This record gives sequence, structure tokens and C-alpha cells, in this order.
Amino acid sequence: MQLLKDKIRTSAKITDNRIIQVDNFLNHQLDIALFNEIGKEFKRRFSAKEITKIVTIETSGIAIASITAQYFNNVPVVFAKKHAGLNMNKDVYEAKVFSYTKNQEYLIKISKDYLTPNDKVLIIDDFLASGSALLGLYSLLAQSGAEIAGVGIVIEKTFQEGRKLIEEKGLHLESLAIIDSLQDGQVIFKE
Amino acid sequence: MQLLKDKIRTSAKITDNRIIQVDNFLNHQLDIALFNEIGKEFKRRFSAKEITKIVTIETSGIAIASITAQYFNNVPVVFAKKHAGLNMNKDVYEAKVFSYTKNQEYLIKISKDYLTPNDKVLIIDDFLASGSALLGLYSLLAQSGAEIAGVGIVIEKTFQEGRKLIEEKGLHLESLAIIDSLQDGQVIFKE
Repeated sequence: MQLLKDKIRTSAKITDNRIIQVDNFLNHQLDIALFNEIGKEFKRRFSAKEITKIVTIETSGIAIASITAQYFNNVPVVFAKKHAGLNMNKDVYEAKVFSYTKNQEYLIKISKDYLTPNDKVLIIDDFLASGSALLGLYSLLAQSGAEIAGVGIVIEKTFQEGRKLIEEKGLHLESLAIIDSLQDGQVIFKE
Repeated sequence: MQLLKDKIRTSAKITDNRIIQVDNFLNHQLDIALFNEIGKEFKRRFSAKEITKIVTIETSGIAIASITAQYFNNVPVVFAKKHAGLNMNKDVYEAKVFSYTKNQEYLIKISKDYLTPNDKVLIIDDFLASGSALLGLYSLLAQSGAEIAGVGIVIEKTFQEGRKLIEEKGLHLESLAIIDSLQDGQVIFKE
């Protein structure tokens, strides 16, 4: 997706030749016009699929998933909680996820009320790198019996093992910008 | 806002005569069609104001703020982080917030890159009850020198002190559903 790649080239900060920080438009300040173009592109790539629900994970996936849902007939968005409040229903699906950007393990949770075996789910997230968050979501969805119709990612880094782990599960994965290398602070996209 | 009140009546769960749980459409599963109506209503109520940015706070404000921004010419959304990652810029505005639903104090943060004295900010959040989260956002914005053009809240509970604290700051506050009482598990809206 050219618009997204251009935005990454002009706005992302690279550190340590492997970390790409996109707080400027994706993870802290949110570029809503760009998110609409991202939503349209996910619809184009998953147009053949019947989708009844979009599932994502706290925090950065929520805005992208919500804008994207508008292009899928306003299907409900459900986000897995990393920091459940005291008011949360106790009857939940849960899975462990390790966050490298926070160097911490989380228990992520989705209430059993919001996933059923009848759901056909599009998973949306901002990043695919190690794949840990996506495998956690995969586990929650497998517990619920819902069907995973596809996985839509905004930015994928090919030099970590995420794609391999997702493809091993037989999932249809679409990433809008695929980064092969961040060596020397340069973003090299996969052709 | 009648559509919202109807949704609260049919879908909210009341506990302890003071806690209203709206995970079904606002805090865990997200009703995107309703969020669009909420966004339109905020635009109607703040139509006289010039807005350059929408500011909210992790987690439940993010989706509402993002959908609402579409009705304000796609202005950027910035969310205060409760759980900053290791990659976050260290040059931040910060404030303490106490969360009653998590019984925990947080340090909330916004990068100085994303708030300037030229910004005219609409604050959006899901709930106003004790007012702690809003006072934290007020502090971040005061530190930045940005102007607060208004505060838009989805659900306000009048039997806690939030409104008083916000109005003492001289802010223009608009709440789309105002709840006077949850006694006996019944939702009584302010007329």
C-alpha cells in the first residue's frame, strides 16, 4: 500500500536497526484519514470473505479495527484486554502473550459473551513481528470455536518469525507494508 | 441522545447500585454504528468550536475519539498512555490518575511532540464519574499550553463529583447520557 509506505518513509523513527517507532501516526497520535485508507485496503483484500466480527488487542489495534469495521458493514469490534478492570465479567477466554516493547508477559482476555462458534472473525493488528500477540488471539479464538477468516496487519517485519508462525496455522495473512530490513536506519520494503 | 439511552436501558448491567457495565457496546465489544451516531452528536454540540485535535485516554476512549474525529475533518487523535512501552519518547507531559475500576494509580503520559500551544483540543472520553481521568488530561493539556475547546463524554454519572470538578475549571462539558441514579438496578436518566 503505497500511501502507507510513503508515510513510514517520511515519519517513522528507526532505532537499533530493528525497532521502528510510528507514534507519529499509528501508536500515539492517530492519522484518521490514513486509517480510512487502511480500512478500505483491508476490505479490498478480504472482499471475498464473510466477516461477522473484527477482533483486535489493546491498545494500538483498537482505532484501526474500529475504522476498518466501517468498511465491513459496521460489524462489531471486540478487543482482547491486557488490563482488565474489576468490573469485567469473570467468564473469559484467556491466553498468555509476551510483549517485547514492554518486556512483560500479559494474560489477555475476551469475555465468552462476545465470541461464539458462529462468528467469522477478521483479526486486525498494527504490527506483526514476533507473532506473540497474534498467537495469543489465535488461542482465544480457537477456545471459542469461532472461525478465523483472515488476519490483517498494518506493518510486518519479515526479520522476526511472526509470519512463519501465522502461516503454520493455515491462516490467510495480509500485511499492508512489509519491511525486510531496518539496517543503518533505512527502511527497506519487500518488493 | 435517545439512541444511546435506549442502548443503555437494553444492554447495560448494573451492580451495587452504582456501577454500570457497558462491555456489550462501549468498553469491550464496540458498536461501530452507534459510535458514528455519537460522533455526529458531538459534532452537533461542538459545531461552533474550532478543533485541531482530539485527545483521549487509554483504553475505552480511543475508538470513540477515532470515529468522532471523522466528523471534525479527520483531525488527529492523540491518546494519553497509561502503559507506555519501552519505545516511547521520554520527553512527555505526565499526570497522576486514580482508576476506581482498577483500584490503582497510573502515571498518564503524552509525548510533547503531539501537543502544542497552537492546538485547540476537544477531549473525548467514555465515562465521567469521579473526574480523575479528566483532571489528569486537563493537567497534561495545561502543561502543553494547548487550549481546551470542550469536553465530550458518552456517559456521565451525576452522583459522583466529576461534573463539579470539570466545571470549576471553566470547561464546556457535554455528556450524551446523564445518569442520576442506579438505585435498585434501575437506570434513571436526568431529564
